[in-house]
Amino acid sequence: MEALKSYLAGQWVSGEGKGQTLYDPSTEEPLATTSTEGLNFGAARDYGAAKGGPALRAMTFAQRGEMLLALSRAIHSKRDELIEVGMKNAGNTRSDAKFDVDGASGTLAAYGELGKSLGDATFFTDGEPISLGRSSRVSGQHVLVPRRGVAVHVNAFNFPAWGLAEKAACAWLAGMPVISKPATATAMLTVRMSEALVASGALPEGALQMIAGPSGDLIDRLGPQDVLAFTGAGSTGAMLRGKKNVIDNAVRVNVEADSLNAAILGADVERGSDTWQLFIADVVRDVTQKAGQKCTAIRRVFVPAAMVEAVCEDLVERLGGAVVGSPFAEGVTVGPLATAAQLKDVRAGLDRFVQAGAKVLLGGSGAVQGKGAPEGKGYFVAPTLLLASNAHEIKIVHEHEVFGPSTTVLPYASNDECVALVARAGGGLVSTVYTDDRAVSAEVALGIAAYHGRVCVANSRMGSGWLGPGTVLPQLLHGGPGRAGGGEELGGVRGMQLYLQRCALQGFGPLIEGAVAGAKRL
Amino acid sequence: MEALKSYLAGQWVSGEGKGQTLYDPSTEEPLATTSTEGLNFGAARDYGAAKGGPALRAMTFAQRGEMLLALSRAIHSKRDELIEVGMKNAGNTRSDAKFDVDGASGTLAAYGELGKSLGDATFFTDGEPISLGRSSRVSGQHVLVPRRGVAVHVNAFNFPAWGLAEKAACAWLAGMPVISKPATATAMLTVRMSEALVASGALPEGALQMIAGPSGDLIDRLGPQDVLAFTGAGSTGAMLRGKKNVIDNAVRVNVEADSLNAAILGADVERGSDTWQLFIADVVRDVTQKAGQKCTAIRRVFVPAAMVEAVCEDLVERLGGAVVGSPFAEGVTVGPLATAAQLKDVRAGLDRFVQAGAKVLLGGSGAVQGKGAPEGKGYFVAPTLLLASNAHEIKIVHEHEVFGPSTTVLPYASNDECVALVARAGGGLVSTVYTDDRAVSAEVALGIAAYHGRVCVANSRMGSGWLGPGTVLPQLLHGGPGRAGGGEELGGVRGMQLYLQRCALQGFGPLIEGAVAGAKRL
Repeated sequence: MEALKSYLAGQWVSGEGKGQTLYDPSTEEPLATTSTEGLNFGAARDYGAAKGGPALRAMTFAQRGEMLLALSRAIHSKRDELIEVGMKNAGNTRSDAKFDVDGASGTLAAYGELGKSLGDATFFTDGEPISLGRSSRVSGQHVLVPRRGVAVHVNAFNFPAWGLAEKAACAWLAGMPVISKPATATAMLTVRMSEALVASGALPEGALQMIAGPSGDLIDRLGPQDVLAFTGAGSTGAMLRGKKNVIDNAVRVNVEADSLNAAILGADVERGSDTWQLFIADVVRDVTQKAGQKCTAIRRVFVPAAMVEAVCEDLVERLGGAVVGSPFAEGVTVGPLATAAQLKDVRAGLDRFVQAGAKVLLGGSGAVQGKGAPEGKGYFVAPTLLLASNAHEIKIVHEHEVFGPSTTVLPYASNDECVALVARAGGGLVSTVYTDDRAVSAEVALGIAAYHGRVCVANSRMGSGWLGPGTVLPQLLHGGPGRAGGGEELGGVRGMQLYLQRCALQGFGPLIEGAVAGAKRL
Repeated sequence: MEALKSYLAGQWVSGEGKGQTLYDPSTEEPLATTSTEGLNFGAARDYGAAKGGPALRAMTFAQRGEMLLALSRAIHSKRDELIEVGMKNAGNTRSDAKFDVDGASGTLAAYGELGKSLGDATFFTDGEPISLGRSSRVSGQHVLVPRRGVAVHVNAFNFPAWGLAEKAACAWLAGMPVISKPATATAMLTVRMSEALVASGALPEGALQMIAGPSGDLIDRLGPQDVLAFTGAGSTGAMLRGKKNVIDNAVRVNVEADSLNAAILGADVERGSDTWQLFIADVVRDVTQKAGQKCTAIRRVFVPAAMVEAVCEDLVERLGGAVVGSPFAEGVTVGPLATAAQLKDVRAGLDRFVQAGAKVLLGGSGAVQGKGAPEGKGYFVAPTLLLASNAHEIKIVHEHEVFGPSTTVLPYASNDECVALVARAGGGLVSTVYTDDRAVSAEVALGIAAYHGRVCVANSRMGSGWLGPGTVLPQLLHGGPGRAGGGEELGGVRGMQLYLQRCALQGFGPLIEGAVAGAKRL
């Protein structure tokens, strides 16, 4: 069986010992092993800072952009192979695996184009020069310059390809080297993709390191110029954020964590209308795509009380048509969960919802035989629709994210009540109001904006440009306050700022102008 | 003796028990007591969020600006009384107390004018609309909206007036209510100033609460929409940042902490030149002003090796002329430290420097009789100049901030070495390079920018607009990475962002345009 390798200090290396085993979640067959035991993570951190940082900082934004475009092409040229690995190791349907792999190459390409548009500068000015004295001889000028450490990226199991790429694109374009640590269970795709990135020759020495397994003492080695970006469970994010050296050194930390994303059917939308159909289709997509294992998936479906029955009917009908099974079996639309641990968590979560008073309209926590999977094997969960008739009393629906193919319908009586219920989740990544009405849009969307990193206003008039709320776009912010971790990723240049230090230059105008002459205005 | 009151939930209230005593640091005479025992901080948090938040959010930027201008006037109208309190309770010279009080009214006025310039909007758009589909019917628009909780401000003992005002100005203009907690030892000035702010009638109900003493369980009560901004010792900042609920709720935290700020004499500057004199004057000001108790004060003076002797001669001569004593005594230029604990810390710190190999050229840790102070009383330290001839080996000078009237001269051999030595402090608030040379300016200033929130380039050609690096300006960023806490305050609109949630609106273009029609472009 293959032993996966990590890429540290310019070498493909294996750890000692037996390590961990990666499985095919449809068949529970072992696919590979990986170990990082005994690897020197402190040396990796120092190598990245010493080699990758200066090399990237010496490149212009345009050169970094060309690099990102070359990396995007390197992934795209291995697309079929990478999709196959995603299907096998992550349990993705072909469509789900494309979503991950094309998301990786697409995000790199988007930041590549952004880099090219930023031209020959190596850092940003931020705002206009500020006159501080009575004359213009004392002036101020804010700049954003690359931090001098490394960016450590700790990613989640659900996007082994996109996770590395979306974080690395921002760091590289800003001018920081990356150490990427995928979740071990689905790391095979990240390893294959990293092989393609390294083999492309587009990366300067030290710009990328990748850890296929536990990261040992790496986080404890981070210092004041380093950045730590994490995507995953809130409890792990809290553990990382609370580490002594992270706090003592004010290591810059970005966390994307749990989110009880909402889809809100506006009171103006009539059953069967095009906007209604869009709403139903988006909910169905988010329950089934990647078996609901998306941090942006719709977990709470808010519906005007009078419409609850009709919405539930339509969702049961549509979700009832989903076919659960191995991604390699004909007609399967919902793959397995990625790991046995996830299966256990999702089943337990569904049971907690039911115990709290939610009603199962479809699916549930019971065992499922997946199409094309060996009898009794595979981490399958049926698409599950719950109804929480008392949205105020069933607290768990606002507090616990079931990271699988399920969602819960909740009634609301007024826009104000809806805003208050959405806010009960304590901060989320993305919520959407489906409406054709200007007042509903303004009241609900702006009412919930402070609790989110992204809020969508969707209706049938949008046409083909709408990808649903679950697709994270490089142009728009990804992150959210509170429970969602308080982070900010992507959003074009906004996503680069995690890796930049803002500094006010102050003093003799002509010398400051000279120092920033080659910079790009943010 | 007066028992100071806190202002909570719209009432002036006292805690139970005996509380703590505030002293005159020149005479060690007790001035007042204060207690916050038994006060309900959870209720204060909820009151601020429920009353102050909606009231401020309903005001336009221009209205919030007018409010800040009225508050600035309220402070200015009590200027003489407030200065007197600063001299008595904080041991400030009259000039030092003005620096604090005028800093408070000046910062409120600057943000007041900024608010007026932002007009009738209540929130910001951030960037242009982004076209996302093939047509313009799907678009994106980032906005910045006020967070829905409270802003808790924990301030340092050295700026009891400015500390409240500079943080509150940003929060109020952004649209968030404030709970301000000054350091207990010098809280008398904050209480007097808060009385003036409340009496002005300019503040809506719940916009300001003030805690004259320990803040009990307040921090433990903060949730995902709240903000915590702290200025003070790094160890306290780390304690606050590490609190379980702060981490679990991703409470947004801003820390301004320790900083080993540097003044760098450029190799091009000749002895006796105007730029040389400016450099000497700035170092002298930062050692003496507020008895060196400024977070921005110059702690490390980097000098080309050949110039060390001359710089030390000039500094010894100038600092030797300082008069230490009670602010109420004639001719005194350096007041006492604020507390007995600070005196102990500063003396211990100076001893550690000497033990590590630094040489005392002037002053030292010995007892000092202050002019106009009772024999043997008062927390006085003599202006102290140290020389660390081996800048690389005396590690403590790059790691430990002596928060008193002292600074250390260090030689450097090249611009590169200087940048590396400055960076050894692991992040700071502000450093300054004194030079008339374009190459020195670009190399050193940009070389150290990633390690600072502010970098100055100073020379004699600047004229009267230069206030020295120690003056924090509302227009420019205040904060710094790493040891300095990783925070960002002030800097015009930048300082408001701590209190704003960035959110990407996405979807049907016309509805999004409608929702943001009244917003101000950031």
